[in-house]
Amino acid sequence: MSKINAVITGVGAYLPDYILTNDELSTMVDTSDEWIMSRIGIKERRILKGEGKGSSDLGAKAVADLLKKTNTSPEEVDLLICATVTPDMPFPATANIISDKVGINDAFSFDINAGCSGFMFSLATAAKYVESGMYKKVIVVGAEKMSSIVDYTDRQTCPIFGDGSAAIMLEPTTEEVGVIDAILHTQGFGRKHLHQKAGGSCKPASHGTVDAREHFIYQEGKHVFKHAVSNMADVSVEMMKKHNLTADDLAWLVPHQANNRIIEATAQRMGLVKDKVMINIEKYGNTTSATLPLCLWEWEDRLRKGDNLILSAFGAGFTWGAILVKWGYDPK
Amino acid sequence: MSKINAVITGVGAYLPDYILTNDELSTMVDTSDEWIMSRIGIKERRILKGEGKGSSDLGAKAVADLLKKTNTSPEEVDLLICATVTPDMPFPATANIISDKVGINDAFSFDINAGCSGFMFSLATAAKYVESGMYKKVIVVGAEKMSSIVDYTDRQTCPIFGDGSAAIMLEPTTEEVGVIDAILHTQGFGRKHLHQKAGGSCKPASHGTVDAREHFIYQEGKHVFKHAVSNMADVSVEMMKKHNLTADDLAWLVPHQANNRIIEATAQRMGLVKDKVMINIEKYGNTTSATLPLCLWEWEDRLRKGDNLILSAFGAGFTWGAILVKWGYDPK
Ligand SMILES: CC(C)(COP(=O)(O)OP(=O)(O)OC[C@H]1O[C@@H](n2cnc3c(N)ncnc32)[C@H](O)[C@@H]1OP(=O)(O)O)[C@@H](O)C(=O)NCCC(=O)NCCS
Ligand SMILES: CC(C)(COP(=O)(O)OP(=O)(O)OC[C@H]1O[C@@H](n2cnc3c(N)ncnc32)[C@H](O)[C@@H]1OP(=O)(O)O)[C@@H](O)C(=O)NCCC(=O)NCCS
Repeated sequence: MSKINAVITGVGAYLPDYILTNDELSTMVDTSDEWIMSRIGIKERRILKGEGKGSSDLGAKAVADLLKKTNTSPEEVDLLICATVTPDMPFPATANIISDKVGINDAFSFDINAGCSGFMFSLATAAKYVESGMYKKVIVVGAEKMSSIVDYTDRQTCPIFGDGSAAIMLEPTTEEVGVIDAILHTQGFGRKHLHQKAGGSCKPASHGTVDAREHFIYQEGKHVFKHAVSNMADVSVEMMKKHNLTADDLAWLVPHQANNRIIEATAQRMGLVKDKVMINIEKYGNTTSATLPLCLWEWEDRLRKGDNLILSAFGAGFTWGAILVKWGYDPK
Repeated sequence: MSKINAVITGVGAYLPDYILTNDELSTMVDTSDEWIMSRIGIKERRILKGEGKGSSDLGAKAVADLLKKTNTSPEEVDLLICATVTPDMPFPATANIISDKVGINDAFSFDINAGCSGFMFSLATAAKYVESGMYKKVIVVGAEKMSSIVDYTDRQTCPIFGDGSAAIMLEPTTEEVGVIDAILHTQGFGRKHLHQKAGGSCKPASHGTVDAREHFIYQEGKHVFKHAVSNMADVSVEMMKKHNLTADDLAWLVPHQANNRIIEATAQRMGLVKDKVMINIEKYGNTTSATLPLCLWEWEDRLRKGDNLILSAFGAGFTWGAILVKWGYDPK
């Protein structure tokens, strides 16, 4: 019996219509298009508007797009994993809600939280289910309404994040394509530098936590930046060495979109020219669990069967890692 | 190459000291020991006291106990999954925090949210990692400070839940023991009947949500009860049929501890005598993701290598399922 690999067979996405530009942000906090573009590399980000809307509204549209593009009916799906740090509600899982909204009722589903590495950790997990041979169609969706936890009076964080969602389908194959390897890491000391102070069991919501604006992202940017640069670069280079891949062997780096300077430093350490790096941070900002699949979605038409991709991310936890993917199909 | 199974090789736990009795509850809401015992089956539950304490404080102690009992050093651990609906903070993951607190720094870790089925979904996930052959020591910990989301003015829900944590170690084996099969389900329509209204991306914390007491468990007990009884019984019987197991072939049912009547109905449908059902709800109440491993921990000394166990749970989502485990060791 030959080994079963888990291969990505399609990508879907959804981005909300509303565009929050640097110019509009500059009317909210003391910042400028020039500062944001030079220090982060973001021009605009999408925002999900509408009372009572949550990440599942984004995720359900991305999954619906994926089902349509891959010609899959909801009953065929075995498992749906949602990576998110902005679930609709603390419980039940947003994966359950997304499943219900798209008509997936004959599967199981759960949420994974691993900060900005959530999509990567979920993809590795989904791959294990598929490789077992027992699950034929597994969806991984990153869905984030980051605007629900961004403090739009804090200029240190509000330019960075955006809303969005994207999803991939994972299926078994005996060909030598798909998720080849994952190197994943956690170091919990990093929580000091990036977390949400209130709204969990340590500090449930109260008038005090609302007044103290503790339901928003707290970030010490410089610390996060330093760790992100070294860890994303280290683990990506480690993945290349482990598989004897030179920069020439790689078709694409698919990096988390947190800061253009982090992406550039990672690509440089890998010896990659800019043409081989997926970058769309300018348009969408940091959509947390949605950045990687949003890149795959945007570049899908330029990917060829057999292309070596390294996915790499870093995020709250700290969590980080790299996944080596051999792309499974030519443009359809 | 023979198939690799994932076998549970140890169980650890931690329960906070403070005991909240039915008598004390009766001073808080209009209820009685008699009502709670007859309708639910709970005598007392544990509560984690202490400003700023969260689920990781429980989980870290359970994992420390597990590491000690299994003679494992933190560096040996490859992966830690935390099942929780009461994370310390919305992000980073409580798994990351637990890992840091016990000195696990050379692994990766993430949270899974699947309501009261969280431990079961996490165990199935961890098993897939172990079965791949690449991960040798994987910890699954259920950790819940349910008291952080229980409304102690709502007599319909406050008697039910308790705080607690328990953890299992999963390792590869080529023997015919371990996690044999998992049948898992989600139906998201059930979210109507069991959820937390605020504190997620649909409804972030505000003075209004705090005043409306929307950061607590919302449950329509009768609906949840009805679905829990039929789904837990159905899936447990399905598992028996699928593997040609009679009641005689089963050593134990390990049921989620939500309501004694749900447990009894499930056991009855399976044809099991009460002696084969793990029940400790009387002492701990519903600790959500911690109920199943807390049972395994309490019954560990009575389990024998080769014993067939069916784990079964139902929870917010709705999520539910059953896992067939062939126990891997005799009392140590
Ligand atoms: C957040 C980040 C962009 C800040 O960039 P930086 O170059 O480190 O900037 P600093 O925080 O040192 O601030 C430099 C100056 O710019 C100011 N500044 C910060 N945000 C600003 C803004 N939006 N507009 C204008 N000025 C700003 C600061 O107040 C500071 O002023 P000072 O020197 O007078 O005190 C950067 O640290 C970063 O990208 N960190 C990592 C973020 C990340 O990856 N997060 C996601 C992980 S999942
Ligand atoms: C919550 C639960 C124990 C309630 O039991 P029930 O028998 O359905 O009780 P009801 O909700 O119908 O209430 C019956 C009466 O008892 C009352 N009551 C409810 N809670 C009470 C309490 N703690 N003490 C005294 N009376 C109570 C009700 O107000 C109602 O009174 P009424 O008839 O005058 O209106 C039960 O529905 C249950 O266990 N549901 C499933 C819970 C579960 O599994 N949750 C976890 C899933 S993960």
